[in-house]
Amino acid sequence: MILQSVIDIAEICARKGVQNIVLSPGSRCAPLVLAFARHPQLRVRTVSDERSAAFIGLGIAQQTQKPVVLVCTSGTAAYNYAPAVAEAFYQHIPLLVLTADRPPEWVDQLDGQTIKQSHIYGGHVKRSLDFPVETHHADSQWHATRLINEALNETVAFPEGPVHINIPLREPFYPEEGESFTYSSDVKIIEELPSSAQMSQDTLAALQAELKNFNRILVVAGQGRKDQALQETVQNFCRATGAIFVTDTISNQQAEGATINYHDVFLAAKSAKTEPTLQPDLLITFHKSLISKNLKLYLRGQQSMQHWHVQPAGQVADTFQALTRIIRAEPKAFFQQINSTELNTQVAPVFANAWFELNAQGKSVLERFQENSPFSEFKACHQVLRNLPANSLLHLANSMSVRYANLIGVSELENVEVMANRGTSGIDGSTSTAVGAALSTDKLVILLTGDMAFLYDRNALWHNYLPKNLRIVVLNNHGGGIFRMIEGPRSQPELRPFFETDQRQTAQKTAEDMGLAYLKVIDAKALATALPAFFDLTAGPQLLEVETSSPENYEVFAAYRAAVQDKIGLSSS
Amino acid sequence: MILQSVIDIAEICARKGVQNIVLSPGSRCAPLVLAFARHPQLRVRTVSDERSAAFIGLGIAQQTQKPVVLVCTSGTAAYNYAPAVAEAFYQHIPLLVLTADRPPEWVDQLDGQTIKQSHIYGGHVKRSLDFPVETHHADSQWHATRLINEALNETVAFPEGPVHINIPLREPFYPEEGESFTYSSDVKIIEELPSSAQMSQDTLAALQAELKNFNRILVVAGQGRKDQALQETVQNFCRATGAIFVTDTISNQQAEGATINYHDVFLAAKSAKTEPTLQPDLLITFHKSLISKNLKLYLRGQQSMQHWHVQPAGQVADTFQALTRIIRAEPKAFFQQINSTELNTQVAPVFANAWFELNAQGKSVLERFQENSPFSEFKACHQVLRNLPANSLLHLANSMSVRYANLIGVSELENVEVMANRGTSGIDGSTSTAVGAALSTDKLVILLTGDMAFLYDRNALWHNYLPKNLRIVVLNNHGGGIFRMIEGPRSQPELRPFFETDQRQTAQKTAEDMGLAYLKVIDAKALATALPAFFDLTAGPQLLEVETSSPENYEVFAAYRAAVQDKIGLSSS
Repeated sequence: MILQSVIDIAEICARKGVQNIVLSPGSRCAPLVLAFARHPQLRVRTVSDERSAAFIGLGIAQQTQKPVVLVCTSGTAAYNYAPAVAEAFYQHIPLLVLTADRPPEWVDQLDGQTIKQSHIYGGHVKRSLDFPVETHHADSQWHATRLINEALNETVAFPEGPVHINIPLREPFYPEEGESFTYSSDVKIIEELPSSAQMSQDTLAALQAELKNFNRILVVAGQGRKDQALQETVQNFCRATGAIFVTDTISNQQAEGATINYHDVFLAAKSAKTEPTLQPDLLITFHKSLISKNLKLYLRGQQSMQHWHVQPAGQVADTFQALTRIIRAEPKAFFQQINSTELNTQVAPVFANAWFELNAQGKSVLERFQENSPFSEFKACHQVLRNLPANSLLHLANSMSVRYANLIGVSELENVEVMANRGTSGIDGSTSTAVGAALSTDKLVILLTGDMAFLYDRNALWHNYLPKNLRIVVLNNHGGGIFRMIEGPRSQPELRPFFETDQRQTAQKTAEDMGLAYLKVIDAKALATALPAFFDLTAGPQLLEVETSSPENYEVFAAYRAAVQDKIGLSSS
Repeated sequence: MILQSVIDIAEICARKGVQNIVLSPGSRCAPLVLAFARHPQLRVRTVSDERSAAFIGLGIAQQTQKPVVLVCTSGTAAYNYAPAVAEAFYQHIPLLVLTADRPPEWVDQLDGQTIKQSHIYGGHVKRSLDFPVETHHADSQWHATRLINEALNETVAFPEGPVHINIPLREPFYPEEGESFTYSSDVKIIEELPSSAQMSQDTLAALQAELKNFNRILVVAGQGRKDQALQETVQNFCRATGAIFVTDTISNQQAEGATINYHDVFLAAKSAKTEPTLQPDLLITFHKSLISKNLKLYLRGQQSMQHWHVQPAGQVADTFQALTRIIRAEPKAFFQQINSTELNTQVAPVFANAWFELNAQGKSVLERFQENSPFSEFKACHQVLRNLPANSLLHLANSMSVRYANLIGVSELENVEVMANRGTSGIDGSTSTAVGAALSTDKLVILLTGDMAFLYDRNALWHNYLPKNLRIVVLNNHGGGIFRMIEGPRSQPELRPFFETDQRQTAQKTAEDMGLAYLKVIDAKALATALPAFFDLTAGPQLLEVETSSPENYEVFAAYRAAVQDKIGLSSS
């Protein structure tokens, strides 16, 4: 008989609001597989490649903002989860990782599929727990049920993230024929009611008074979800103070006319980098990572700037080497509290004007360049992003896709949310994550990816749950074209064999194997013609491959860089 | 300028006998890529999927018995190595794993591709080292060169295994245009001269005296390489004492007529399990893991048996829960030393006869069954294994392939060596490992695999080094057919969706994408017709897919099991 405590893991998960389980098959994990698969309230899917399975789970959790449970068998299966676990840790995605294991006495005894699984994810989980081997004693039963509760509570406590429970299991792994099992009706549930972090009145008063000392305030949002109320309160702060709000594409905070969205374009120009009127004296940031290297480098160069980071709890990164104050509050609460006070701060108009002027110039240079340039993957991205259907979800793969997209931007008017694995910025799970997202929404999910990221993670599509609302655009330049874009490797003789890797495949056979309709285009006209049918929500899953040449892509991108350098100058200068 | 100490890593590796490097592309690892790629004595290959890259490296090291260096960039790349690192740890394969990293001050600062890489492989490496960030001080240079020496020495010290060095790298990652670098001519080399572990004269005398007390001695070899001298000395011991030598297929110690090779067949029969004449009173083992679960379970049931394990150093597994003595000696030295003494031990003839009789019966049942059974993957394996070309190398994937092969066996007369990833027994790198082997030998390398293992690891073939001597036989039953073979899952309603996973792909499109000639067969006649051309060493890389039905495979295998149960009885009973 399977231990009741193991069966009840599924029941506790269901009662605590878990909806989605991603299993990978195995023998040792069979009791968990059965417990989850038979639970009437849980949606269970099975994905064979654990690397992809974990990223699919991450994509579901990222989209639903609820913990997803992963279940794998013993041995290296657990290690195949590790890339997604690290991404979840840095991107703050709630995952409960359950790894089946042999009981501890069998570790290192040369039995199959047995490695040292306890604490296998090191510092990349919020907690690492060991499920009891035996639960015959009442204290062990309490331990077992308490662990599951604690782990799930921890996944969603700010900052959200992965928790690992290693579960040693003895045979039998299956009920006897005819034998059935039931979930306990009285499982222990520990609810955790989260706080809402606000500034104290003293802190608020102090900050309000201090704000007067600054007259060049920049607000920068890192990676985050769409949040209308947050966006409005930041804009109110900017209106009241004259502060400038800079938004990367993955911040999902862009507001046409009100935010700076083309910073990644214009901050590449030398004139902008050195322009004194742009320089902030106070930087206020919230949320997670930034894509724009130009913005990061620019802000790292600001010697006399104060940097306040607003984050309710957890470790804080000093992304700009300028951090002076950590404010423990929800970003929304912080701006609402500040806005509710008398704000005597007034930012210098020359500062605000300089940012808006450059933003307009950045947009204009970019759009004019795209109009006139020959076809390339940069132009293809522009075509795709400018034609995104309203209310769709855009997933960006690392590495050139997310960079192009951050330059081009998406219009907030279309209500497109943008996601990318920027916790660790790997290429290993971009497709799987988009698949997970598409499984969790009725929206159209469009993945913009490159040939390396797509082929690396092709097992993302190797299962029986291909979502109808999935659309994949593969920018195929037959290698890691990003290396040609970087100054260093381009001039090395090793470029083609060792950096770009000269890979010759297209995505066609993978698409055919996986059941996606496939279309290839090699010019702007064909792409424009293809997009309406490609974006049709009523059609099935599709893959659109845009084949380009890496040297030509480089030429176009070099011309774009030159245009930026040429055309961007400050209006006030 | 790239740090000279980083460039010199390649020089030290070359001087210490490293020949093969497997790189995965990245920006952070560029200094290492250039240092290795430009070294005139090193064979450098680049493989984009780090999971496959590491297993390819493992396959090369397994074949060449020399350390292979892996180089990857920062971030989750390091985690994608982890399955192969764990396999190398348990299979005792020398790998030097070099992971590029940001300098420590940039960890957790929300910069791309940065995770906590130091000591990332936990207990699955022999050592984990941190390369110095700066090597301007002479002591740091000494530290840097010493580390590489120590690490390489450790990879090959018994028991061989993986060593990890995390290498923090600051920009610049590339030489300026026109700038070149040279390897230092005076790099520090620390040679380590290994010992040859022998028993002391006292130990030898004691064991010799003790051996007389046993009259049912069983010698069992675990996974190991072909070794003629070892094989002969064990056989001499058996001849002198009447001991019985049991050899799994992956032990590579089979000798027709002299060893027991069909134990996995006959030990499944109830009559054999309970037969008193078979029971050993002393078990002597050496080398690594066993495939035969029947043998393991049988030996675990022997209450009154002593178990001596011969291993020069390192942790010893108590595989049969019966370990009583660890003998620190090379297996060959142990048997040679024992053989050189006066051996008054005499094993009871009834014991030896019982084993040989059952071995003959096992062989006979198996061969007669194969002659008369309908086509199935079991029969296909038999056809492949009985037609292997002489002097070829057979790689067995987990999980059914290796089990079938252990039942069927290979003839030692053909001088076929057999390999499999039985350190952790994962399916995640079987193809990659075979690719690595094929890159390191002129022999024909035949991989026998299933659809799950093959498709899981399809990126094994995604690079520009497809070896001409590679032949892949894919047993495609469209799912994890092993689960139907096991008593538990077969009777569960979850069998097809959650255990077998009902995967519908063939290997055809993957073969086409990867450049292997492809042929599919679905019956014995077509397979027999295909094999000669398939095994032709002058042809290019080929994939032969044997498509069968999982329920039919089960029926055939159930009939085989019934035949074993029916036909095996002891001659003496």
